Amino acid sequence: MRIGVLTAGGDCPGLNAVIRSVVHRAIAEHGDEVIGFEDGFKGLLDGRFRKLDLDAVSGILARGGTILGSARLERARLREACENAKDFSREHGIDVLIPIGGEGTLTAARMLSDAGLPVVGVPKTIDNDISSTDRTFGFDTAVGVATEAIDRLKTTAESHQRVMVVEVMGRHAGWIALESGMAGGAHGICLPERAFDPADLVKMVEERFARGKKFAVICVAEGAHPAEGSMNYQKGAIDQFGHERFAGIGTALAHELERRLGKEARPVILGHVQRGGTPTAYDRVLATRFGWHAVEAAHRGEFGRMTALRGTDIEMVPLADAITELKRVPEDRMDEAESVF
Amino acid sequence: MRIGVLTAGGDCPGLNAVIRSVVHRAIAEHGDEVIGFEDGFKGLLDGRFRKLDLDAVSGILARGGTILGSARLERARLREACENAKDFSREHGIDVLIPIGGEGTLTAARMLSDAGLPVVGVPKTIDNDISSTDRTFGFDTAVGVATEAIDRLKTTAESHQRVMVVEVMGRHAGWIALESGMAGGAHGICLPERAFDPADLVKMVEERFARGKKFAVICVAEGAHPAEGSMNYQKGAIDQFGHERFAGIGTALAHELERRLGKEARPVILGHVQRGGTPTAYDRVLATRFGWHAVEAAHRGEFGRMTALRGTDIEMVPLADAITELKRVPEDRMDEAESVF
Amino acid sequence: MRIGVLTAGGDCPGLNAVIRSVVHRAIAEHGDEVIGFEDGFKGLLDGRFRKLDLDAVSGILARGGTILGSARLERARLREACENAKDFSREHGIDVLIPIGGEGTLTAARMLSDAGLPVVGVPKTIDNDISSTDRTFGFDTAVGVATEAIDRLKTTAESHQRVMVVEVMGRHAGWIALESGMAGGAHGICLPERAFDPADLVKMVEERFARGKKFAVICVAEGAHPAEGSMNYQKGAIDQFGHERFAGIGTALAHELERRLGKEARPVILGHVQRGGTPTAYDRVLATRFGWHAVEAAHRGEFGRMTALRGTDIEMVPLADAITELKRVPEDRMDEAESVF
Amino acid sequence: MRIGVLTAGGDCPGLNAVIRSVVHRAIAEHGDEVIGFEDGFKGLLDGRFRKLDLDAVSGILARGGTILGSARLERARLREACENAKDFSREHGIDVLIPIGGEGTLTAARMLSDAGLPVVGVPKTIDNDISSTDRTFGFDTAVGVATEAIDRLKTTAESHQRVMVVEVMGRHAGWIALESGMAGGAHGICLPERAFDPADLVKMVEERFARGKKFAVICVAEGAHPAEGSMNYQKGAIDQFGHERFAGIGTALAHELERRLGKEARPVILGHVQRGGTPTAYDRVLATRFGWHAVEAAHRGEFGRMTALRGTDIEMVPLADAITELKRVPEDRMDEAESVF
Repeated sequence: MRIGVLTAGGDCPGLNAVIRSVVHRAIAEHGDEVIGFEDGFKGLLDGRFRKLDLDAVSGILARGGTILGSARLERARLREACENAKDFSREHGIDVLIPIGGEGTLTAARMLSDAGLPVVGVPKTIDNDISSTDRTFGFDTAVGVATEAIDRLKTTAESHQRVMVVEVMGRHAGWIALESGMAGGAHGICLPERAFDPADLVKMVEERFARGKKFAVICVAEGAHPAEGSMNYQKGAIDQFGHERFAGIGTALAHELERRLGKEARPVILGHVQRGGTPTAYDRVLATRFGWHAVEAAHRGEFGRMTALRGTDIEMVPLADAITELKRVPEDRMDEAESVF
Repeated sequence: MRIGVLTAGGDCPGLNAVIRSVVHRAIAEHGDEVIGFEDGFKGLLDGRFRKLDLDAVSGILARGGTILGSARLERARLREACENAKDFSREHGIDVLIPIGGEGTLTAARMLSDAGLPVVGVPKTIDNDISSTDRTFGFDTAVGVATEAIDRLKTTAESHQRVMVVEVMGRHAGWIALESGMAGGAHGICLPERAFDPADLVKMVEERFARGKKFAVICVAEGAHPAEGSMNYQKGAIDQFGHERFAGIGTALAHELERRLGKEARPVILGHVQRGGTPTAYDRVLATRFGWHAVEAAHRGEFGRMTALRGTDIEMVPLADAITELKRVPEDRMDEAESVF
Repeated sequence: MRIGVLTAGGDCPGLNAVIRSVVHRAIAEHGDEVIGFEDGFKGLLDGRFRKLDLDAVSGILARGGTILGSARLERARLREACENAKDFSREHGIDVLIPIGGEGTLTAARMLSDAGLPVVGVPKTIDNDISSTDRTFGFDTAVGVATEAIDRLKTTAESHQRVMVVEVMGRHAGWIALESGMAGGAHGICLPERAFDPADLVKMVEERFARGKKFAVICVAEGAHPAEGSMNYQKGAIDQFGHERFAGIGTALAHELERRLGKEARPVILGHVQRGGTPTAYDRVLATRFGWHAVEAAHRGEFGRMTALRGTDIEMVPLADAITELKRVPEDRMDEAESVF
Repeated sequence: MRIGVLTAGGDCPGLNAVIRSVVHRAIAEHGDEVIGFEDGFKGLLDGRFRKLDLDAVSGILARGGTILGSARLERARLREACENAKDFSREHGIDVLIPIGGEGTLTAARMLSDAGLPVVGVPKTIDNDISSTDRTFGFDTAVGVATEAIDRLKTTAESHQRVMVVEVMGRHAGWIALESGMAGGAHGICLPERAFDPADLVKMVEERFARGKKFAVICVAEGAHPAEGSMNYQKGAIDQFGHERFAGIGTALAHELERRLGKEARPVILGHVQRGGTPTAYDRVLATRFGWHAVEAAHRGEFGRMTALRGTDIEMVPLADAITELKRVPEDRMDEAESVF
């Protein structure tokens, strides 16, 4: 069998572990040949790929980033890809394509699959917001980085008698904020899933100070937003690169709290440190298992599906299920995080 | 409600996170009172306990060990405990006992429960070998420590052109060896669940050297054992403290490989560093959720059960189910770990 | 002897290690009594202190923050303190005061010393900008945190084909930027000591892209500034809490580079994570040695001096020397950091 | 100029950082050519080398091990090398050789230098025992690894009410034990420089238990030894690979303490994890500076010398000075480490 692999979308610790696992399993068990397309779907369209043998993936298990590169694909070119989907197999001589990516990538994967290309997907997102899988690799690393930051900020907040607002990633789902907030022992957690009222945070901080705990750390997902009318907040204008130019919610909330409390409140925006670098052991294992099972699924001819963690098992689920709905933090998980002082 | 908490058995990162979570939830949501028995069941028998309020658990979330202490209980005293189980509630005025511990503790918990003491258990083991729960806290930290060690040993093995045998914890189940071996990219993994033949390892190393990869790292669970007749190995005599006095399997295997290969092979025994210190974010979240749900179960009157992770949910399962059988590494998980070069 | 200790100024990993070391040495070797004033000089003025015995400092060696608290002192109250300096010894019954702090604290220490209070200072700053000592504790930890962030950002920058601008601490001296930039392998380093020209950075990035290295990471001290006329940059207005309200140099530079390069350039502002949390081994050893030597100096009657690292030795230097001039990054250290691709 | 580089001796975090720095500086500033000999002096003798350009050293700064490999050289072959020293320059067309290594390597370097080969040495040892330099790279990483282990073991020791004996590296000098013992807050530290009496350790442990601190951690250098007659201890026989076959001092001491105290005492032998893997920021900076200055020295024609850290400066010192005497832990440093409870 000849297997094509590509990585698409943003950086995510564990991408290289998947690539390595695909290559190892394919060669060791099946005597397959594996090629890697460069810069995501672009490489597929432009025919830029290289052979991936054992040497090519030596030493990459613990390395962040992706040895294959990654890039966004414009919608127009995606349509072009779908029109030629059937030809790719022949052109590059591949029997199956294993795209590793997030929601956008899996949607494209499904379109290519529907258009006739044999595809086995591997889900990837540090945000953990893909349905059908209990967890995605990269998430544990992101939570680990954010937790270590909160650990450090707590001692600083305490010795400065200060409120710290930590903004973590999570535009549409608050998983990173939820778990790093719980793990770091944040005193308040704001998620995109539930509008917050700054008055509640003010109350919490004042109660802490009254108890002699003269500091507080609040963990905010970048996609969190205040309840209607609770606070003056306007999301920033979007620049040509698709990024906001003005203060995000972390900064806005810190200023609001400072104003209301009359105490120092400082924002810390963790940003891209959450999505790069060495993956945790958890993410390496999950990524390795995903790669292994993707190869097995390919050999069983289970196309149009992707790997998913269900309990302790890796199962193959329809790509369609993964992309219809974002996996958001449910109410009961938010409740669990609330009894924190 | 008045809740009694205790920790029993070996050290395990996350114990303090459970204690803190029990106290927070009980006080914040229910206005309960919480007391902590010292040194495990001994404190229960001797009536040694202290009140646990918010201040008592302040700052312990990320700290290793247990603020309550832990100790082994002799069988005789356990019987004594069971005979007086019903009296404990009255004596210490507790409405429920939340023991946090491993297989032995949960067995004791069940006996006390059967004898009439309202009990809600929380499972604990770095070995991840308790049935009925997908994972236990402490395990992720142990795997993280072992993986970092393998990461470091790999560069040393490579520059010394040497074989390294890393012995990790896991007397009856090989979960730590399996996952740290996969995460660290060990070239061989030996588990208690499947007898190994040193000849296979010799072959693997020789193939690697032939391919120009002049080093190898082998990850061995302390409970791994060679196949009948494949290697001369005798487990060490047991001393008065219950520990083996002579070379464990890691050292024995390193010597055997050195002899057969005519190349340097060095053992590294990770030992107790795997079970102490700051828990990972994953373990803190799991431990915190366990504590939260234990309190809720107590208030619902669900006694004789313990918290368990099932997929992404925390469920309450009968204590009986948790202790009837050890959770061992199944065949398919071993297969997944095999295509490694 | 009765020794008073206090910590003043911003958070700095290693403060607790100094306190613990003072207590251990004073009690173990000299049978001294040690008291700790709360919230820096405020506690000295208000007579708020507590006894520090072995139990009080148990378990704090690796903990960030300061168990004694810290606070800023207004100038007026400092004058008040100086006027009463001689009385403090009598009032609190202390034979010597050991203040641990940065430039402001050491200046105050010197004033108190001149006014007749026996003082032995211990220098503290994550910025490493105190003269007369080769290094200060806290600096190594800050550099470690910043380096780990750069490590992570590099893989993200690479897979996104992006320029990353990391802003690290250092308002007046660029030590953290220099060492974390070198350790992380940043492709450009901007320090307060030498105005930078964005055109040079643009050239460097373009040369990298031309060489096929389609990413770059630039490390900028918060106090770095562009050369006169090289870039439109205005430092933000200062709010009532003494903090800038608008974009710092990291954000401004990222936007400038993005505009000039026509490529994505993202800022990451590390902020307070650099100054909190567990100190590195290096900082714990240095802090412990400082505490030990401060006690010895006190017993030798060497007042008006502070501990300093000189080569591998701890020496006592006049407080006056430490505060006359900031220790800035010299030209030759900047040269060393320049040959980086 | 054409520069030859090689790495010899055991693994040491920072080797790649030196190689990278030599290449960067040589190419960026001087337009030099750099070649790397493989497997230490063996590659020099056998003429095995490869060109080192910017791509060859890309991404290696933070990686453990050495991309050039390393190997021990037999005495006979070293003599052979010295006899042909003058020819190497001509044969390989190199103008200078930069060997990076420990005492043995620097001795060889000096012999080659005396025999007429232009040599600039770079000292390397995790043990920090080379004279003439305040510190060597690799040492900080080793201390960091050992300290993290002690941090973890402390919580385990405490919850098991147990004595832990941690054996760290350091055959002839106790620097790692000294600094990791101080940083980790070990309650006893045993160094090769000062014979210890187990009776003192027993006394310390008993005093701790009497104070209610029912655990202790003792940090022992592998080269530490009991005072004459204080304990029955025989160093193990040496096998054909030059390693001891039987229990080292850590294990022997743990058993001795267990016997005398009648309490559990467990040995943990950290072993090779101390010498591999990612270097700390400190070690990367020092290694980078060493590489930079080695190139500059070569261009100034300062041969027969090696780079050395003196205070905050890198200086060039005669190779002869570095190898005449091992740098051992002086008495006053041992005293500093003693007031620990």
